[in-house]
Amino acid sequence: MRCWVFIAVMLLGLLPGAQPRADEGMWTYDHFPATTVREGYGVSIDARWLDQLRNSSVRLSSGCSGALVSAAGLVVTNQHCVIACVQGASGAGHDYVAEGYLSRRREEERPCPGLQVQILESITDVTTSVDRSTQQSDGADLPRARRVAVARLETSACAKHNHALCEVVSLYGGSQFKLYRYRVYSDVRLVFSPEFGVSFFGGDLDNYNFPRYCLDSAFLRLYNDGRPAATPEHLQWRSTAPIPGETVFVSGHPGATSRLLTNAELEMQRDLFIPTRQLVRAELRGRLLQFAAGGAEQARVVTDTLFDVENKFKWFYGRGRALADNAFYATKQHEEAALRAAVAADPALTAATGDAWGEVARAVERYREIFLRHEFLEARAGAVSDLYHDAVFLVRAASERERPSGERLAEYADSRLPLLEKQLLDDREFYPQVEQIGLELWLMKASEYLSADSPEVHALLGGKAPPQLAAELVARTRLADPAVRAALWRGGRAAVEASEDPLIRLVRATDAAARAVRREYEQGVEGPIALATQRIARARYAIYGESVYPDATFSLRLTFGQVAGWREQGREIAPLTSFAGLYGRASGAGALTLPARWRAAAARIDPATPLNFVATFDTVNGNSGAPVVDAQGQLLGVAFDGNLHSLGGDYGYDGRSNRGIAVASVAITTALRQVYGLADLADELEDLPISRSRD
Amino acid sequence: MRCWVFIAVMLLGLLPGAQPRADEGMWTYDHFPATTVREGYGVSIDARWLDQLRNSSVRLSSGCSGALVSAAGLVVTNQHCVIACVQGASGAGHDYVAEGYLSRRREEERPCPGLQVQILESITDVTTSVDRSTQQSDGADLPRARRVAVARLETSACAKHNHALCEVVSLYGGSQFKLYRYRVYSDVRLVFSPEFGVSFFGGDLDNYNFPRYCLDSAFLRLYNDGRPAATPEHLQWRSTAPIPGETVFVSGHPGATSRLLTNAELEMQRDLFIPTRQLVRAELRGRLLQFAAGGAEQARVVTDTLFDVENKFKWFYGRGRALADNAFYATKQHEEAALRAAVAADPALTAATGDAWGEVARAVERYREIFLRHEFLEARAGAVSDLYHDAVFLVRAASERERPSGERLAEYADSRLPLLEKQLLDDREFYPQVEQIGLELWLMKASEYLSADSPEVHALLGGKAPPQLAAELVARTRLADPAVRAALWRGGRAAVEASEDPLIRLVRATDAAARAVRREYEQGVEGPIALATQRIARARYAIYGESVYPDATFSLRLTFGQVAGWREQGREIAPLTSFAGLYGRASGAGALTLPARWRAAAARIDPATPLNFVATFDTVNGNSGAPVVDAQGQLLGVAFDGNLHSLGGDYGYDGRSNRGIAVASVAITTALRQVYGLADLADELEDLPISRSRD
Repeated sequence: MRCWVFIAVMLLGLLPGAQPRADEGMWTYDHFPATTVREGYGVSIDARWLDQLRNSSVRLSSGCSGALVSAAGLVVTNQHCVIACVQGASGAGHDYVAEGYLSRRREEERPCPGLQVQILESITDVTTSVDRSTQQSDGADLPRARRVAVARLETSACAKHNHALCEVVSLYGGSQFKLYRYRVYSDVRLVFSPEFGVSFFGGDLDNYNFPRYCLDSAFLRLYNDGRPAATPEHLQWRSTAPIPGETVFVSGHPGATSRLLTNAELEMQRDLFIPTRQLVRAELRGRLLQFAAGGAEQARVVTDTLFDVENKFKWFYGRGRALADNAFYATKQHEEAALRAAVAADPALTAATGDAWGEVARAVERYREIFLRHEFLEARAGAVSDLYHDAVFLVRAASERERPSGERLAEYADSRLPLLEKQLLDDREFYPQVEQIGLELWLMKASEYLSADSPEVHALLGGKAPPQLAAELVARTRLADPAVRAALWRGGRAAVEASEDPLIRLVRATDAAARAVRREYEQGVEGPIALATQRIARARYAIYGESVYPDATFSLRLTFGQVAGWREQGREIAPLTSFAGLYGRASGAGALTLPARWRAAAARIDPATPLNFVATFDTVNGNSGAPVVDAQGQLLGVAFDGNLHSLGGDYGYDGRSNRGIAVASVAITTALRQVYGLADLADELEDLPISRSRD
Repeated sequence: MRCWVFIAVMLLGLLPGAQPRADEGMWTYDHFPATTVREGYGVSIDARWLDQLRNSSVRLSSGCSGALVSAAGLVVTNQHCVIACVQGASGAGHDYVAEGYLSRRREEERPCPGLQVQILESITDVTTSVDRSTQQSDGADLPRARRVAVARLETSACAKHNHALCEVVSLYGGSQFKLYRYRVYSDVRLVFSPEFGVSFFGGDLDNYNFPRYCLDSAFLRLYNDGRPAATPEHLQWRSTAPIPGETVFVSGHPGATSRLLTNAELEMQRDLFIPTRQLVRAELRGRLLQFAAGGAEQARVVTDTLFDVENKFKWFYGRGRALADNAFYATKQHEEAALRAAVAADPALTAATGDAWGEVARAVERYREIFLRHEFLEARAGAVSDLYHDAVFLVRAASERERPSGERLAEYADSRLPLLEKQLLDDREFYPQVEQIGLELWLMKASEYLSADSPEVHALLGGKAPPQLAAELVARTRLADPAVRAALWRGGRAAVEASEDPLIRLVRATDAAARAVRREYEQGVEGPIALATQRIARARYAIYGESVYPDATFSLRLTFGQVAGWREQGREIAPLTSFAGLYGRASGAGALTLPARWRAAAARIDPATPLNFVATFDTVNGNSGAPVVDAQGQLLGVAFDGNLHSLGGDYGYDGRSNRGIAVASVAITTALRQVYGLADLADELEDLPISRSRD
């Protein structure tokens, strides 16, 4: 039968490979398509090449990637991946995020508390073992049984290893399970971080943009027993420029993708989910920007909130644009049609898959119906008001904690509570104006989207106008006082029910409706989709096997492509930028202001030196900091972003315009030598005799 | 052949009528589907009934509808249709918009300068005449030849009539031409307008919402030679409540609809046009709201701008929601598929229509490519900055005026310039903060959507950051001074080219790029779509004839339906609201504040009296103020709005949820008697002997 399936799919011309889009794919190291690379690019890579790259690729617990670049434990990554460590090193009159952090001697390398670096050592297939442990389980019990089996495998695999991390990775929607074992470094120190003004040069306007001029790079060093770790396997640093058209590879940890969403789910994202989130976010952005225009102090207190809102806005914008692109969307329709045709041609698969697509479509229809209530009463309730979220946590925890852990709302499980409790009780700073903007926006949008006459909005507003109610809540709540939060937390249900705090009262009055719509969502939408999606994933795996790559899971992947620009709104975008472009763009206005060191160094730098470049590799977030290597395996860049089109990478790879953005290795060593006077560090990278001892 | 077409279409089950949606349709009076109404509703209407209603229906030059409701020239319409007249009557310490305007005697009825009332007297088919006059014209000359023929017909038709207006109406995309002759009243006086607080009760949140509690009604009186016009034909006022399920008709002047857009055009609207406009508008709205929160004076200066932004936001939101609704969109796909199948089945039609849909699709593809440049450089350049638009007008007029009228950009034709000149030179009030918000938003969004590195954005910003540039422009421009504008206008090209005004300089520096993208749009998008659309419209008319209604053209139409609610987010919305609901909703917060007269009158009003109601009739803007009549032709309400779903009426009628909203006649007379003490006016409406003379 399988043969007929194959023929049917080939006739449709839709089997991956029939219309090759050679740069797509986040491949696992144990199934890298070396043949495709040889045939498509004329580049031969062998097992030794792959081992070398894998052994030099690192994962950061901050959600990023990186690479070993010297024999003495030196790791390159992005500045934005270590910003928490740089911030933590600040104080005593120094803001190292703004000033940059430069260690000129080993003892100046500063520990990064909590930051861990992991290096993949082995991949073992444990599918049979997981399946055997769960074969007696029926549908309802399967998730629990699987968690138990996975935990057992992980524990036993790491039993004989020190400083190891073992993770069972579910690939192809639970069709395959692989055990990934990592070597772990917990003593990680900050060596170098440039000024934010050059690592994020251009600010929000340039975020996800290209041409780009950012030195978004940083160096860490791994330590063992108080001494730099010996890392004989590491990447060679390339000191020459990327060449347009040359073949490049990225070895990193893409976070998560949704490339297997059904068409019904994509339409929901395109038509309702993304537009609604974006409209509310755009209005919030307008409010925050206008508030910030009021003065320096106003600008300061909204900085974090605004950065997050603007970053999400662009991310959603890119996703929305991808789905609104007819050509791109047609590929998603073709993919689904081909898979469904292949399933239909195989009676056994047809029986096993059942009406999975229909089940998803009906669940999505249900989601469309409850979407606005789910958004404004539960998923997005409170908008950017931190105090509101504290109030929800206090009210819900009071009753959830009375139940066994397994019967609570997921985020109140025993495993999650300690961190949330710490966050609740910490003495955080609150900004009343930001709280008020968030609450007012939420209450106004709830009134608008749910209609001012819905019983839910009546319960929310209690006859008041949103601005009036928001002002009262912020003026009268005492939740900004950590002692008040602690008393409510420790007092449990009795304290919460007796509380006269207006935010607590508001949550008490509306929690039943919020929980009800959440239940509708979990039972009517999320649950049915998860069950049906797993059957689709298994059918997909049965048909295509490992000729297609699995969705990203923050595990190590290898992707490849070429240094190449693209065509944007009728114009060709060149693939490389240079220091000349950086200085030309530095008008001194806002985020286009260069740090003093850079202004002073202008004359010492060859303006033609490349700074950033784009290539067709297939990366998403999580790949930040990942090494970009050439055909010889030499590091020629560090990935740090993608262009606007790459944001559609959540849904699929569009080779016409999806580009990853990297900082060129030569730009980093040029800056180290000419701007920062860190010749030793540059020598260590370029494997030259180090002129002065760093010890 | 036509027979085969019919069979093919019937087999598809898609001919209008095969799946009747009986409430759809904006029918012309000369082809009203009386049989459908009799069969679907059991209501028989005859020629006399139609004549009576037509003779009582009026069109207002303010873009609204209305009805004659007494023998002495009394006209009912909406308050929002006469707001300019009410505003104009204000002054000397009175703000009649806020206070309401009550004339207790004839001499207090205030003239409405510029307001004209038109009553349709006859419809004549002139298709043959127009076609004969244009049959020698080729494609390029056709529009001009048609304008000449139409002007000749209009002039000759009105030659023998005083106080008449003759208009040739193009129906079915130029497949049919009808001459509409109106009787015109130019002496129109304001009799009654309620307080804005009750005519627009609930403000923006309630706009397009239902349940609704607005007395959006007003009375005018037509005068002839200084005396009330004799209007023996008028509607009878019904003093009883609307009954759920009863059949109702609306006779009004729907402004414009786009129900014949092709699927390619609708997708462009859904995926790109509406989302982009809305995102920018939402951010602007957030800025304006946050600015307004700064104090009473700030709130005052943004009132008009904010009202307009919020009204457009909701309108676009409703349109977007309609297109994102799968079931609704499927009807648009079916309509196009059926029409294309019918064309394909008829060789003559196939030949005449050619690849019209393909031509539209390719032009739309071109639009997608240039859309962002067209938006931010031309169509939406300057956002809400009035000074920017003045600068564009001055710079362009300087060169356009040097050319013959026919060769200018359309808005600079001799016929258009006088009004624009007056607007330019009038001493208008400018609000620097609103100007700055508008310019900053525009410059920021242009940078964001076109990318900060496009040559167009370089030209716009000249290396400055948007907030900095916007602040400088507003601080340094002198265009707010009418004398400066007048000097530039009168000085023509030399004065404009010599000007050092920063806004004039900005426009001079960017006008070439803006004109270029406008030309690309007009020649590559608008033109090809217009030509192809006309062929599609003719094919449609050839197949369906007058069994379907033509798109709205602000000419008199009759639509019908039932008093009925709908199902919204899982809840049934009842079709009627009452005065009890109004008082219950009047919390005193913001727009939920009732005028003093209304608070004082509460005890005198039967709370069960109906206030507003919804019905399934098919109305869009332009129908505002139109009479809602029952099966006997009695007026039982005045249309003033539609629900959120009715905004999709631009694209098509969705009987599941599209509802028009009307104020009940009984609510108006109740208010006149119990709130305003205007028993005479109520008696005149109810045809009772008038107790006190109004003369």
